[in-house]
Amino acid sequence: MSTRTVLESKSKTVVIGFDEPFCVIGERINPTGRKKLAAELEQGNFETVERDAREQVACGATVLDVNSGAVFSNKMAEDPRYADNNFVEPPLMRELCARVQAVVDVPICIDSSVPEALEAGLSVCEGRPLVNSVTGEEERLEKVLPLIAKYKVPVVAISNDDTGISDDPDVRFEVAKKIVQRAADFGIPAYDIVVDPLVMPVGAKATAGLQVFALVKRLREELGVNTTCGASNISFGLPNRHGINAAFLPMAIAAGMTSAIMNPIRKAEMEAIRAANFLMDHDANGNDWIRFARVAEAVDNGASFAEASAASAAAGGGRGRSGGRAGRRARG
Amino acid sequence: MSTRTVLESKSKTVVIGFDEPFCVIGERINPTGRKKLAAELEQGNFETVERDAREQVACGATVLDVNSGAVFSNKMAEDPRYADNNFVEPPLMRELCARVQAVVDVPICIDSSVPEALEAGLSVCEGRPLVNSVTGEEERLEKVLPLIAKYKVPVVAISNDDTGISDDPDVRFEVAKKIVQRAADFGIPAYDIVVDPLVMPVGAKATAGLQVFALVKRLREELGVNTTCGASNISFGLPNRHGINAAFLPMAIAAGMTSAIMNPIRKAEMEAIRAANFLMDHDANGNDWIRFARVAEAVDNGASFAEASAASAAAGGGRGRSGGRAGRRARG
Repeated sequence: MSTRTVLESKSKTVVIGFDEPFCVIGERINPTGRKKLAAELEQGNFETVERDAREQVACGATVLDVNSGAVFSNKMAEDPRYADNNFVEPPLMRELCARVQAVVDVPICIDSSVPEALEAGLSVCEGRPLVNSVTGEEERLEKVLPLIAKYKVPVVAISNDDTGISDDPDVRFEVAKKIVQRAADFGIPAYDIVVDPLVMPVGAKATAGLQVFALVKRLREELGVNTTCGASNISFGLPNRHGINAAFLPMAIAAGMTSAIMNPIRKAEMEAIRAANFLMDHDANGNDWIRFARVAEAVDNGASFAEASAASAAAGGGRGRSGGRAGRRARG
Repeated sequence: MSTRTVLESKSKTVVIGFDEPFCVIGERINPTGRKKLAAELEQGNFETVERDAREQVACGATVLDVNSGAVFSNKMAEDPRYADNNFVEPPLMRELCARVQAVVDVPICIDSSVPEALEAGLSVCEGRPLVNSVTGEEERLEKVLPLIAKYKVPVVAISNDDTGISDDPDVRFEVAKKIVQRAADFGIPAYDIVVDPLVMPVGAKATAGLQVFALVKRLREELGVNTTCGASNISFGLPNRHGINAAFLPMAIAAGMTSAIMNPIRKAEMEAIRAANFLMDHDANGNDWIRFARVAEAVDNGASFAEASAASAAAGGGRGRSGGRAGRRARG
């Protein structure tokens, strides 16, 4: 079994799969918790978004998450609808996706808790985006799965449901299984579902790492699905977080994890992923590693990781194995 | 099944085991390929040995490999026997073990290709040392296993035999199995055998990482043995070696590897191991991680890793979970 989740931008194909390099989904385009970015978006300023798009791709993200989770606090005074995500997000998502597509050619991961924002993103995204997300919550299943079926795109499935996030990994597995089954009722194949088994902070739950490794293996072997996670959750609340993240990612990859939603503008994590790709035999002749080693050397000599990565990308070395479109098209 | 390989120094017990933090066996006390050290040893100068012993323990090695692989090139002129390892190594090993024991209180891994040097080390080591190594070669089996049985100590078993090192991991597994069976004939239990499945450079063999991960899992599940490896072999010939090593170690740990013979004076590798211990639930409350994070911070502020580790150890924080002797004694 070799599950392949095919994503497309205007001219590029990215496959999340058991036999593919780990898929890095850049998380930075997200106004949640980034007040400065939220304020810029309210003013119609997309400079940070465009810079984040370019930098993340240069650093090795092959997919960009675009989250529209904002309300517009200055505009609220004149129009209270700006305090409502359902009002703000759909047009904002449309604009964000259009801006990102204008500056980089990578598939987009349309990320919102507002179904109308997901559909707004779907209406403007070129190629075959990923939708983030559906959960096991009834309302969410009923609203999101029809969209996924209509647009024939892949979806991130988060393993919580109406009872919340279970501490018990067996329950989280059952939630994922339920989502896969419900999706099948809509004609959505398992290979188009990327399960997030939910990563707990290891500082709060000592078995958090072991749970994820075991869950990823089961999800892959029993449900045949690709997996993703918010990788940095593992180190929440701990000192030297990048050190934890940089060990967690290779371990998760060894367990079978095939993607993560993460900050790619960090050398430690990206180095760990590049090395893990090589060690999983997903880097033919070590070409990506050797290219990355030059970026690492520039960082050792004082460059920032983003600068060194951008210089390498400009020299033609930033794209890893993603090439011209090779996959099937799911949409006209 | 919870295999435990118990090592002892004068007053400390270290357990290599499935439910234990990863065991770091410091590799630096080894004149092979270190001409300056070999010359010092020839002159009866043990300063580097003593410094290496202290530094490695401060950095987190809980066992020290002591390799006597030298010939004495200046003395050869007057006495040709100094060109012979069989002549040089036994007294050298005796002296090295005594010197190391005088400055640090950790179990020793007696490392030589000369059986008489292994016995010389065994005759002076306090506690319960590890012997490195037996292989599947007939002559080696017949010379080393009786020693292991006589001293009732654990042994590293390297999975090559008279036909050499096989490219085929199944053959390497069978060699390990043969050693375990032959050892049983001598009354040596499987829990006292630590198998080295042999790590190939991933730059030369693209499946080298996958082979090790699969072998470690089989060795553990089918033979019930602990495992070790020369970790840095994986990155031989590649740029940015520490980046490869620092991803390989957590992946090997996730696969079930329980020890490695390695250079502990490197922050990248030791950080990866400390983080992996935490993620495997082998670092209660993250205490070791939090202590290590302070060392990492000192390194970020300009200290060398060895200095920062020594300062932390002097403050009482360098020993991880190894404590007073808790295990059974195998020798009077």
